[in-house]
Amino acid sequence: MSAALRELARAALAEDIGPGDITTAACLPDNPPGRARIFAKQALTVSGLEIAGAVFAERGCVLRAVAADGEQLLPGEELARVEGPVQGLLIAERVALNFLMRLSGIATHTRAVVAAAAGRIRIVDTRKTTPLHRALEKAAVRHGGGHNHRFALYDGVMIKDNHIAAAGGIRPAVRAVRAAVHHLVRVEVEVEDLDQLEEALSCGVEVLLLDNMDDDTIAEAVRRVAGRAITEASGNMNPRRIAALAAREHRPDLISVGGLIHQARWVDLSMRMLQ
Amino acid sequence: MSAALRELARAALAEDIGPGDITTAACLPDNPPGRARIFAKQALTVSGLEIAGAVFAERGCVLRAVAADGEQLLPGEELARVEGPVQGLLIAERVALNFLMRLSGIATHTRAVVAAAAGRIRIVDTRKTTPLHRALEKAAVRHGGGHNHRFALYDGVMIKDNHIAAAGGIRPAVRAVRAAVHHLVRVEVEVEDLDQLEEALSCGVEVLLLDNMDDDTIAEAVRRVAGRAITEASGNMNPRRIAALAAREHRPDLISVGGLIHQARWVDLSMRMLQ
Amino acid sequence: MSAALRELARAALAEDIGPGDITTAACLPDNPPGRARIFAKQALTVSGLEIAGAVFAERGCVLRAVAADGEQLLPGEELARVEGPVQGLLIAERVALNFLMRLSGIATHTRAVVAAAAGRIRIVDTRKTTPLHRALEKAAVRHGGGHNHRFALYDGVMIKDNHIAAAGGIRPAVRAVRAAVHHLVRVEVEVEDLDQLEEALSCGVEVLLLDNMDDDTIAEAVRRVAGRAITEASGNMNPRRIAALAAREHRPDLISVGGLIHQARWVDLSMRMLQ
Amino acid sequence: MSAALRELARAALAEDIGPGDITTAACLPDNPPGRARIFAKQALTVSGLEIAGAVFAERGCVLRAVAADGEQLLPGEELARVEGPVQGLLIAERVALNFLMRLSGIATHTRAVVAAAAGRIRIVDTRKTTPLHRALEKAAVRHGGGHNHRFALYDGVMIKDNHIAAAGGIRPAVRAVRAAVHHLVRVEVEVEDLDQLEEALSCGVEVLLLDNMDDDTIAEAVRRVAGRAITEASGNMNPRRIAALAAREHRPDLISVGGLIHQARWVDLSMRMLQ
Amino acid sequence: MSAALRELARAALAEDIGPGDITTAACLPDNPPGRARIFAKQALTVSGLEIAGAVFAERGCVLRAVAADGEQLLPGEELARVEGPVQGLLIAERVALNFLMRLSGIATHTRAVVAAAAGRIRIVDTRKTTPLHRALEKAAVRHGGGHNHRFALYDGVMIKDNHIAAAGGIRPAVRAVRAAVHHLVRVEVEVEDLDQLEEALSCGVEVLLLDNMDDDTIAEAVRRVAGRAITEASGNMNPRRIAALAAREHRPDLISVGGLIHQARWVDLSMRMLQ
Amino acid sequence: MSAALRELARAALAEDIGPGDITTAACLPDNPPGRARIFAKQALTVSGLEIAGAVFAERGCVLRAVAADGEQLLPGEELARVEGPVQGLLIAERVALNFLMRLSGIATHTRAVVAAAAGRIRIVDTRKTTPLHRALEKAAVRHGGGHNHRFALYDGVMIKDNHIAAAGGIRPAVRAVRAAVHHLVRVEVEVEDLDQLEEALSCGVEVLLLDNMDDDTIAEAVRRVAGRAITEASGNMNPRRIAALAAREHRPDLISVGGLIHQARWVDLSMRMLQ
Repeated sequence: MSAALRELARAALAEDIGPGDITTAACLPDNPPGRARIFAKQALTVSGLEIAGAVFAERGCVLRAVAADGEQLLPGEELARVEGPVQGLLIAERVALNFLMRLSGIATHTRAVVAAAAGRIRIVDTRKTTPLHRALEKAAVRHGGGHNHRFALYDGVMIKDNHIAAAGGIRPAVRAVRAAVHHLVRVEVEVEDLDQLEEALSCGVEVLLLDNMDDDTIAEAVRRVAGRAITEASGNMNPRRIAALAAREHRPDLISVGGLIHQARWVDLSMRMLQ
Repeated sequence: MSAALRELARAALAEDIGPGDITTAACLPDNPPGRARIFAKQALTVSGLEIAGAVFAERGCVLRAVAADGEQLLPGEELARVEGPVQGLLIAERVALNFLMRLSGIATHTRAVVAAAAGRIRIVDTRKTTPLHRALEKAAVRHGGGHNHRFALYDGVMIKDNHIAAAGGIRPAVRAVRAAVHHLVRVEVEVEDLDQLEEALSCGVEVLLLDNMDDDTIAEAVRRVAGRAITEASGNMNPRRIAALAAREHRPDLISVGGLIHQARWVDLSMRMLQ
Repeated sequence: MSAALRELARAALAEDIGPGDITTAACLPDNPPGRARIFAKQALTVSGLEIAGAVFAERGCVLRAVAADGEQLLPGEELARVEGPVQGLLIAERVALNFLMRLSGIATHTRAVVAAAAGRIRIVDTRKTTPLHRALEKAAVRHGGGHNHRFALYDGVMIKDNHIAAAGGIRPAVRAVRAAVHHLVRVEVEVEDLDQLEEALSCGVEVLLLDNMDDDTIAEAVRRVAGRAITEASGNMNPRRIAALAAREHRPDLISVGGLIHQARWVDLSMRMLQ
Repeated sequence: MSAALRELARAALAEDIGPGDITTAACLPDNPPGRARIFAKQALTVSGLEIAGAVFAERGCVLRAVAADGEQLLPGEELARVEGPVQGLLIAERVALNFLMRLSGIATHTRAVVAAAAGRIRIVDTRKTTPLHRALEKAAVRHGGGHNHRFALYDGVMIKDNHIAAAGGIRPAVRAVRAAVHHLVRVEVEVEDLDQLEEALSCGVEVLLLDNMDDDTIAEAVRRVAGRAITEASGNMNPRRIAALAAREHRPDLISVGGLIHQARWVDLSMRMLQ
Repeated sequence: MSAALRELARAALAEDIGPGDITTAACLPDNPPGRARIFAKQALTVSGLEIAGAVFAERGCVLRAVAADGEQLLPGEELARVEGPVQGLLIAERVALNFLMRLSGIATHTRAVVAAAAGRIRIVDTRKTTPLHRALEKAAVRHGGGHNHRFALYDGVMIKDNHIAAAGGIRPAVRAVRAAVHHLVRVEVEVEDLDQLEEALSCGVEVLLLDNMDDDTIAEAVRRVAGRAITEASGNMNPRRIAALAAREHRPDLISVGGLIHQARWVDLSMRMLQ
Repeated sequence: MSAALRELARAALAEDIGPGDITTAACLPDNPPGRARIFAKQALTVSGLEIAGAVFAERGCVLRAVAADGEQLLPGEELARVEGPVQGLLIAERVALNFLMRLSGIATHTRAVVAAAAGRIRIVDTRKTTPLHRALEKAAVRHGGGHNHRFALYDGVMIKDNHIAAAGGIRPAVRAVRAAVHHLVRVEVEVEDLDQLEEALSCGVEVLLLDNMDDDTIAEAVRRVAGRAITEASGNMNPRRIAALAAREHRPDLISVGGLIHQARWVDLSMRMLQ
């Protein structure tokens, strides 16, 4: 992915620098070599080292990771060292930290949600991601211990209520989709009640999305499926509820949580110049 | 900005669609005209209608705003209506909502922070923004009642600690910058204590950033400046503290809050097809 | 896909026109409106009408399809009518025909291969496609009655000999991949003999690629699989052999044929101006 | 041309890889250095080494050519060695081979056509090329011993039937074009019979395209021209006919053959990892 | 060329507007429809109406030409009317005028140089053009009555001193080039004295560049060539000298003048809002 | 700025080279290493070394500056040495010189205008720049001893006659703008007479543009302002008039001169190969 990363780094810097950083050029005309450390100001899980490195590289600086993506740090611990011409360090700092703080925020939040599932349910993300940042955000979910759902519309089939309504039912929708997709794709159908569940199962669907059901209905659905399909629950999930679902005998295989990404806040990082 | 918006909409759709949405194409081969409504599922302040419209337009659909950017909605109230070929509506839905939910989240969060200042201090954003989304995020801050700081490195001068250290002091740093910038730019200097404040004032600096000071020091700084410069406070700000600062006799002109953007969570919106 | 199509049309025209078509500008300075017909000069199956339309649209002309993609035409029958400023018609002609002749060539060749399978085996394509033309070429395969395999590396898993060797066997390779991919993806493993087949089956693999086996071994493999996985045969396939495989009792579910695309020649089309 | 080649390599890889090759990443997480050889599986003429090298370079691998573009290889002989991180080798393999197999296919087919002319007629290509691949395909024609016609609409003038009709005859068309083009451009006119030939010659045209004439008419045309212009024949050419034309006393200077490119099939190559 | 023009207009506006024109947005929030006229403030020859129209079109405005490219205007006469939303008119004004003033400056300067030749020598431009503006600048030369030399390195052959030195003489250089180029290209050779002239003529070269010769040598060169090749003079040309050369019996066919473009100054235009 | 510079160099070369420089490839097939010097053919001030270096770098050559941007050279003195493969040197030469000759022309012309001000008035540029070349041209102005005005619409506020008319006067215009812009921006207002001057001063405007006033009015305006705002004069400025204004007791702080850029002609440079 490195060409795409370079492009992203370049575009992000262009947005922040435009025709130039006059302040840095005026105050550091000699542009001597310098070094800096990037460290955590709160407990966090690291994500984003590769894109941060790409940002610094665009300005002639080298980032050397001290921690690894996915690693948990305490306040004060180092993520990385950077070195290169001081103008480059100062100009790239904001953009690189903007990436690192966002992505580490997602990894950190994901870790908390994943912990609630106690290893008994796989926590996956959704397509609710920041436009143009999907690959990075989905990697951050993995760094936080979560798993990814399909990447986008093209690498998996999810038949939702609008598709079912338009096709005239689950069966015709599944039939139409099976005829259109290649043989490496499983079909997932969103079901809202147990009747729909039975209908979907009878069509040989491989994955069932149990959408917006209460906990008992989810359990009953899982019981009925009895291993004949993968079960995924979604809708209004939070750590407490996830923990409760995980403690049940009949629990879904996966829970998808858009909030891994869209409820994550940035974590606090800082870059400090070294003498 | 419409060419830039179109580009952004196009790139965001490409990320989510890639070579095509097989499910929608298979289930709705006739692609009849359709209509949908986008509505709030929580109380919120609207932002992002223009980019959402650009996303739908890329797939041949038209968004008509029912609410305006900056308007506050109650749960169930409508933001917009969309109409066009059903495939277009369903394919563009996720990307359009991803923009709207993020940006309305920022506007909603900003409104809460701004309220704390009770109109007595101007709340401004920072350069801590999501790469490639800065213009939209800064507009969302305005929709929430906040104001913008400089857009980027090129439209304002901010002399920070690293610049001061490199230049050998506030005075030489200010002198170097003044010689380099054009005559429509004010100079802002970051000061960490009252000594630095005095030095900066004596250089004729027009804006002072009171960085990471406690509330009493901020008040004392504002008292000493006595209108000779614009004062901006920053560092660990939250609504409670902002309210306290706003209640003082000597309060800064502005408070900059990165968290307007980086602590905002997405709000909940939904799109529903109409018969 | 229309933004991508427009981009492709634009780039293709730029390649052929560069700073301008002096001949057409000099001979038709008045640039009156004109009309033309595009017709088959041999029996063929149509593909490429949408991109051809996009090419003409870039020069202000409108293509109206007379035949549909996938339709079989006899020599002399019309594919489309085009109208618009004469300079546009003449300048866009070559590029539009280059697309139509290539893509209809693929559809036409595919139809012949598919016919050999007599509806008893699904014929699918491969990743052997012309760089930057994959979406169009895979559509042409569908227009010719073939089916598509995965689009690219990202929408399906295919474990090949190099992966197996590197992972230390089929079982560890499958395990590693299952841990990494999302739950809508089936796993396909390339097997070269019956021992590998048994090992892959025992791992619960959903699709088996029977690579470079002779016809009897393919039949024996299909017999052993007995419906527990989808079987796909590949390697040195041609219509005669496909017909023979299709006539057997134990035949694979699919045969993948790179030659649908890479052994197809362009068909002959012509555009003629109408008075 | 290297910036253009890099762009093409990058776009081609993006098409095939998208957000990533999960299979390779999962099976070869250590990503050790590796080596591979690319060799011919049939007799062929090589073309495409530079773009194949650019593709591998994008993934951190180095291609060292063993054969040269234009060289004829026997089955089993090597084109190149590649080395670099194993993930890079496996991920870039398909795209690099797609270029090499296509382009070597064109070079190989061209060589057969050129051989028919026995060095007595120059074989040239046309503008019937795959969109976005023209420069590479025209290089492949040269590697196969052919020559290039003009690259595109902008580097040569070819007055065709539609231009003649629009301008009101050969003479006014030639006059209009001469007034518009710069002085380094020769003018070629397409003639369909001997009357048109005489008219074009009388206008001082430097190149005559003898379009869709039978062999005797071509010979008579060449005899009449008697060296006063370059003669180019085109239309329904194949090796047998080219050989016959080449054997005549009055033979054209050039024959243009679109089929050098559009009737070429890919040749068979393979990449094998070395221990 | 319209896709290229649109791209150029868009990039030029992005350079000048960036994230937005705050002044116009603040002062004209209602953005009512408006009209304006663009008129000459000095005598000039018009060029650039198409790109100026493309610039306004990007902001939703329509330019209607009153004069035509190539037309000579007196001070006060109108080039065009523009109408559209007032914000668009004011924001696009500067960029549109920057194109029009530059290009009309080139057309105006060219007309003066061409006049000196009194129709007896063709005045042509060179490759000394502003990067990324070549097509527009060469059109401006035509609007001023001049002619174009080759567009770039790819649409004509010019053998210069460095090529001759490297190839080991004029004859081997011409031979190498003839073998490489297609048959619609004439070969031009730069000669510095009469010996080189004779050598080039003996190679059958079609165009001779008489570089940096004095007027008598140019005349003698033309006399010797006696129509066997096209003659082009260059080097330190100005209107007075061009007039002198044009008055001679033995005069070159063409004179190439880089200064048509690089010695041209912008002309003065103004846009005024109408009530 | 280096990613932007690389892009510009690449686009400029693509414009001039397109599919290739056949002449150089044919005459120098061995492509040996070579060296060249770039030197002044007239007295000039240097500008453009960085972009010239970027152009050569794209073709594998290295430019080493002998002079620095801003340095004044006499005829015959060297600007730079270049070395690399001879094909690269010859192919990049024209584009690199086109940049250097233009930009040094602007620096040279600026120096003459600046000299007239005798250090008593700051000479600044305007937004009348060549589209897509603004950053380079503004740097050239600095190299010639001038200063820059705002870069574009986004980094400074200039309220002009149309804005004043639309807002209903200077006061409401200033108020509207102040509410919209961030706190690091000064406001400049264009005034045409002394009444407007008084009104603008009373609004606390920080910069006054004295537009198209005669010299006495300018002096009177400066006298009245008495240091309460920065004064900038513009309109029909030339060195003689600038010298006269600079000699007065009451002179403006700045004079803005669009002609620094749009009245500059290219200077004469040459590149010569070294043995």
